[in-house]
Amino acid sequence: MSVNKDLILLGHGSGGRLSHQLLNELIIPIVSGAVQSAQNDAAILEPVAGRLTFTTDSFVVDPIFFPGGTIGSLAVHGTVNDLAMMGARPLWLSVGLIIEEGFGKTDLKRILEDMRGAADAAGLKIVTGDTKVVPRGKADKIFITTSGIGVIEHDFTIHGANARPGDAVIINGTVGDHGIAVMAAREGLDVGTDVISDSAALNGLVSQIIGACGNALHVLRDPTRGGVATTIKEIAQQSEVSITLREEALPIKTAVRGVCSILGLDPLFVANEGKLLAFVAADAAEAALATIRSHPLGANAAIIGSVEAAPAGRVRMETSIGGMRSVEMLTGEQLPRIC
Amino acid sequence: MSVNKDLILLGHGSGGRLSHQLLNELIIPIVSGAVQSAQNDAAILEPVAGRLTFTTDSFVVDPIFFPGGTIGSLAVHGTVNDLAMMGARPLWLSVGLIIEEGFGKTDLKRILEDMRGAADAAGLKIVTGDTKVVPRGKADKIFITTSGIGVIEHDFTIHGANARPGDAVIINGTVGDHGIAVMAAREGLDVGTDVISDSAALNGLVSQIIGACGNALHVLRDPTRGGVATTIKEIAQQSEVSITLREEALPIKTAVRGVCSILGLDPLFVANEGKLLAFVAADAAEAALATIRSHPLGANAAIIGSVEAAPAGRVRMETSIGGMRSVEMLTGEQLPRIC
Repeated sequence: MSVNKDLILLGHGSGGRLSHQLLNELIIPIVSGAVQSAQNDAAILEPVAGRLTFTTDSFVVDPIFFPGGTIGSLAVHGTVNDLAMMGARPLWLSVGLIIEEGFGKTDLKRILEDMRGAADAAGLKIVTGDTKVVPRGKADKIFITTSGIGVIEHDFTIHGANARPGDAVIINGTVGDHGIAVMAAREGLDVGTDVISDSAALNGLVSQIIGACGNALHVLRDPTRGGVATTIKEIAQQSEVSITLREEALPIKTAVRGVCSILGLDPLFVANEGKLLAFVAADAAEAALATIRSHPLGANAAIIGSVEAAPAGRVRMETSIGGMRSVEMLTGEQLPRIC
Repeated sequence: MSVNKDLILLGHGSGGRLSHQLLNELIIPIVSGAVQSAQNDAAILEPVAGRLTFTTDSFVVDPIFFPGGTIGSLAVHGTVNDLAMMGARPLWLSVGLIIEEGFGKTDLKRILEDMRGAADAAGLKIVTGDTKVVPRGKADKIFITTSGIGVIEHDFTIHGANARPGDAVIINGTVGDHGIAVMAAREGLDVGTDVISDSAALNGLVSQIIGACGNALHVLRDPTRGGVATTIKEIAQQSEVSITLREEALPIKTAVRGVCSILGLDPLFVANEGKLLAFVAADAAEAALATIRSHPLGANAAIIGSVEAAPAGRVRMETSIGGMRSVEMLTGEQLPRIC
């Protein structure tokens, strides 16, 4: 096999014969198994009962392979989680690939297999896609944009504007794992095997939380870019409430804390890709915590804070030494290309 | 205002404060008008009656501004047209932006305004989106991925596998305008004012064709990348029929023909972004043609070929001098980054 046959060429994005070969021989067999006669410009969706929800995310993570995942699994998890945070069951996914000329087909195959594996595990189907190729140097390896459609099969109001005084703030595990794992991989840091991305599909966990809490679940949000701090601040602003976090309660891996302290990063601002923040009415909080802890993605769950009525939009942190400090959104770019 | 305030920075993709500013001050007011409390991770869609259809396309066109459009209007038209080719009414659009650090906010504003204008004109709403920023040199200005959802409000079968012997092949106007306009703009060629992209939303025209033809309309497909030749070949293969095109019948602007002949390009392989191919039963063909011609996007419509039973998958061209030549899919990349 010549070198060229192993690489993505500009012609693979032409819409012509090479595009068809790539689609029929590599992409479709891996991601969807659709047959050629189904290759129209769009997918027709099966009817479902419930409100539909729709989201999109672009992924530009560097490096594309990192401890705990790849840009492929991340692109599925990210969009699945955006749907799950609406309390929806993810159903269908679209995939837009932008590939740099010269990218290896072996790497592409690995990424696509990861997408399929992540989609299968989360129970949704990849139903439509598009591939573009840009000349060498005009993109960095591969960018993936996924869009997802899910169905909301309950009548509860789960919404960023729905946090209420008295709510407990629960997180399903350790903070900052994804961002630090990607950053360490990018910089070639030797950080041991404990620093691994938490990239995961949260829809199964969400389904259990909804089942356990019902109306007592007020807000779900995944603290991705900008980290827990930015997400909590968003919710405080949307819901016009005050939120107090307790530093001691925040689960952080020792290795992650170590890397953060060496690099001068605050784990509260570091991206997560398999974490959710659940705001739950106080009287349901312990039951919710127990439910989350019983799930494989929630073993290290903790109640990390609580909601007060005022002042609207304020977030503060009760520090380990008993003080209070203000928490604001991430300013600037702490870690670029983290997802 | 300092120079930095006019440019997109890495921090605008951080998910933190700069991201929120960009979203709230520039993106949301232009594309959707949503309020902050609606800013959840996904959009909730209104219920509709009919089968839903879902598609995605990534846009990497170079240059991003060209005669007849921008990457913004193109990204809306392309996805609208994929939905329209399924006989669907486009309803909702998602937008994923990948922006190179240092990109101008003025250019971004122009692109977003174009997206909003194109979406309004096509009657669909931009309901969700995402923005990533990559360091300078890691992408080329801006890439846009749009995904669309539409509703099919009829029971007709319009499908690439549905071409039937006897069908007339109709195109709604001149061939190759988009590809040549983009290529000329990229190369700085002086080709006069007649070479302009045909980028347009075809859903209004499709709605009229469906109304006029009903069950007599068998296939709709937009000949984008790979041009008319590649699209016709795809349909011949999917439907397992033979298709004969008539060279004399193909509408081609004189200026486009001129540029093609200078550059050694065959307009049959050049991308279109406002054209459709309609396969219509013979006895409905003249009525369909009249309907298309009465629409602003169909003034130069023509019947350019016909379908025979066999051999399956063959496409040939009856040349102006009376001969027959074989038509195959585009091989290689005739014009990279055309959409």
